[in-house]
Amino acid sequence: MNGQRVNIGIIGLGTVGVGVARILLQQGDLLKTRSTLTFHLKTIAELDWNKDRNLDLSNVKCTDNAYDVLDDPEINIVVETIGGYEPAFSFIKRALENRKHVVTANKALIATRGRELFQIARENGVDILFEASVGGGIPIIKGLREGLIANKIESIYGILNGTCNYILTKMHKDSVEFEDALKGAQENGFAEADPSLDINGTDTAHKLTILGSLASNSIVSFDKIYVEGITGISKLDINFAKTFGYTIKLLAIYRVFNGGVDIRVHPTLVSDSHLLSAVSNEMNAIFVTGDFVGNTVFYGPGAGERPTASAIVGDIVDLSRDLLLKEGQKYCNRTINPTADVKIIPIEEVTNRFYLRFFTLDKPGVLAKISGILADYKISISSMVQLETHERDNYVPIVLLTHEASEKYMEQALQKIMQFEFVKENFLRLRIF
Amino acid sequence: MNGQRVNIGIIGLGTVGVGVARILLQQGDLLKTRSTLTFHLKTIAELDWNKDRNLDLSNVKCTDNAYDVLDDPEINIVVETIGGYEPAFSFIKRALENRKHVVTANKALIATRGRELFQIARENGVDILFEASVGGGIPIIKGLREGLIANKIESIYGILNGTCNYILTKMHKDSVEFEDALKGAQENGFAEADPSLDINGTDTAHKLTILGSLASNSIVSFDKIYVEGITGISKLDINFAKTFGYTIKLLAIYRVFNGGVDIRVHPTLVSDSHLLSAVSNEMNAIFVTGDFVGNTVFYGPGAGERPTASAIVGDIVDLSRDLLLKEGQKYCNRTINPTADVKIIPIEEVTNRFYLRFFTLDKPGVLAKISGILADYKISISSMVQLETHERDNYVPIVLLTHEASEKYMEQALQKIMQFEFVKENFLRLRIF
Repeated sequence: MNGQRVNIGIIGLGTVGVGVARILLQQGDLLKTRSTLTFHLKTIAELDWNKDRNLDLSNVKCTDNAYDVLDDPEINIVVETIGGYEPAFSFIKRALENRKHVVTANKALIATRGRELFQIARENGVDILFEASVGGGIPIIKGLREGLIANKIESIYGILNGTCNYILTKMHKDSVEFEDALKGAQENGFAEADPSLDINGTDTAHKLTILGSLASNSIVSFDKIYVEGITGISKLDINFAKTFGYTIKLLAIYRVFNGGVDIRVHPTLVSDSHLLSAVSNEMNAIFVTGDFVGNTVFYGPGAGERPTASAIVGDIVDLSRDLLLKEGQKYCNRTINPTADVKIIPIEEVTNRFYLRFFTLDKPGVLAKISGILADYKISISSMVQLETHERDNYVPIVLLTHEASEKYMEQALQKIMQFEFVKENFLRLRIF
Repeated sequence: MNGQRVNIGIIGLGTVGVGVARILLQQGDLLKTRSTLTFHLKTIAELDWNKDRNLDLSNVKCTDNAYDVLDDPEINIVVETIGGYEPAFSFIKRALENRKHVVTANKALIATRGRELFQIARENGVDILFEASVGGGIPIIKGLREGLIANKIESIYGILNGTCNYILTKMHKDSVEFEDALKGAQENGFAEADPSLDINGTDTAHKLTILGSLASNSIVSFDKIYVEGITGISKLDINFAKTFGYTIKLLAIYRVFNGGVDIRVHPTLVSDSHLLSAVSNEMNAIFVTGDFVGNTVFYGPGAGERPTASAIVGDIVDLSRDLLLKEGQKYCNRTINPTADVKIIPIEEVTNRFYLRFFTLDKPGVLAKISGILADYKISISSMVQLETHERDNYVPIVLLTHEASEKYMEQALQKIMQFEFVKENFLRLRIF
């Protein structure tokens, strides 16, 4: 590196890798104007070269051997866009050990093996950046790490999964059931053929792990996060929520609480007067509260070739500044201390407002018995709806909204209520934001 | 500077200066964790030391002489928070010439004399940062300069003035006239005793100048921006807009157009389905479209001691990284090239959709004559409302929404229409987004 030219290697030429290559090949002049540096896409490693990607790679070395990137002493920055755990982890490790900076969009890897990667980066005096791992093109990681650096982060509420948000938006706007909305999402390219990691909340939890680590400057253990997906939500619930003035969103929640952090992912009723309720379709948004800045929101596309590549190239330019620094002066990855762990408060110790939906037999005393149990557990009802049934099985939906109540007591109350023979098994408990 | 300790001097201990001091004194540990650096508030220069500011300044040198900051060789970064043109300009110039980095929230100064300041900074190998000058605590400047660095910025639509947004929100929600809303804003601390620079659009235009310069990497001439304020808007217009499904906002607009940029500030009808319509009260938001990232929004508090200080300290930390770089390697202010000028397209060459409100005598043929003139100028009407009057003077309001039409033709058509003796003088023309 001669101070003017930064050599880049990309491993993996899928959707995101193509986007990164496209920016480096197309926006060179723009990047030079803004950074004074020349970014040279030297090498791309990819196994499948038969696909037409509409890219002119005549000045790029194309290889099927990742080590042509990882072990090339001329390459300053390695972009990993293959995803998954292996060989992604081994490749990144090798790059760091070869004292190359790394940029990745691999949220699963950062969320579950970030500690190791940050350690290796530190030991080798290089950095690993991952702006594209959360919120696609939204510069939320830079915002937390640098823009809001003066703030203790008090809370983060995020809509972080475009697939879930698209499905919930369709259910809300077109009044369709989950399965039909999912099918629509798949047809429109907003859901994978296997959408399970999206709809069960895992993807959102990966991203929340990363945001929580940045906010707390420590490691959040991914496997200690309470996670619920969106598969249990029916059209009926969406419509009930609407009646009460709420929109159901899959929220990632991080909140400083009781000397630790309350951190969880679950579908949540968001008031229609809150900005997050207006975040529709595949869009993402992150609502961050800092002790000095107050409330801020970052909004944008959470996925896709071009937005994700925009974030990755932002990281590349940031790292290129680091290339100018001497050993021991680099600091990006110091934001997260790999030897510090966040104390996660178990969900049982948290209070929430709840949305409860039961199907019960339509006979006298049912409501009295349910509300009696709730009262026993100090759970107070703020709102209630019971509908008539026109269906044969004579089960009717009852929906209750509660005031702030203990998660532990709610769990116990629900177990009691489910023992009543007049309550059908498929109840739903949601939280209210 | 020994690589570990950064010495800060503040000039001006008003609202914003107090906030910066508070962060530096309170959040030292947090900043050290996140940056590895120690930020030492060495000196504050202020003329009025009689005010109680609820700050413990026992370890800070307090002076009434700005040159104790500007000429102190130990001070690395100077924070200017006195505002206004002079002596702010001279102070900043002196600091830069003494090879100190400068942080300022002074939007008027950056907007009108940025070119000179950026030149002086370059010549002396130092930087001037100004995150707090636009959008208060929102990291929008960092977002444009770094987060979205890979993007050609196609457009920016911003709600950048908290006073105007508060007034328009009150007019909308409480259905009050402008004067009453302004009085309320003043009583609640959201408007100055002399609010003229806010309500006439000047403050918004200052901020737009800065955003436009960042987006184009060139100098935008503040005095070439078309600016309209919000004083002409009545309760009646707010209600008409509401009827048509719009909220009136004072928008800052930047748009790449016809080989130049279309850049202007004026009250604008924003569709109720657009996120910007939901930005209420004193909050700010900036809607940015880049060629790779697509649409993003940055939202947060646009003013106030704590948010503004949050932005300034973010800049301080960024600049402290620059202190580690050698001469010729620093790059923050390279984002804007002081020798390049943006070509601003005159508003006459732009097209818009329009909202037109007239008061006319309630007699036959009025509408035919007005719509006839509009037709002569190829202005096509999309929607129309005429109300009955119950007032004595027999003037009735007529509101027309148009399809896309030429600004030049609209101006000419309005001049013709205003010649009709049945039209009262106080018409209103707004644009629709």
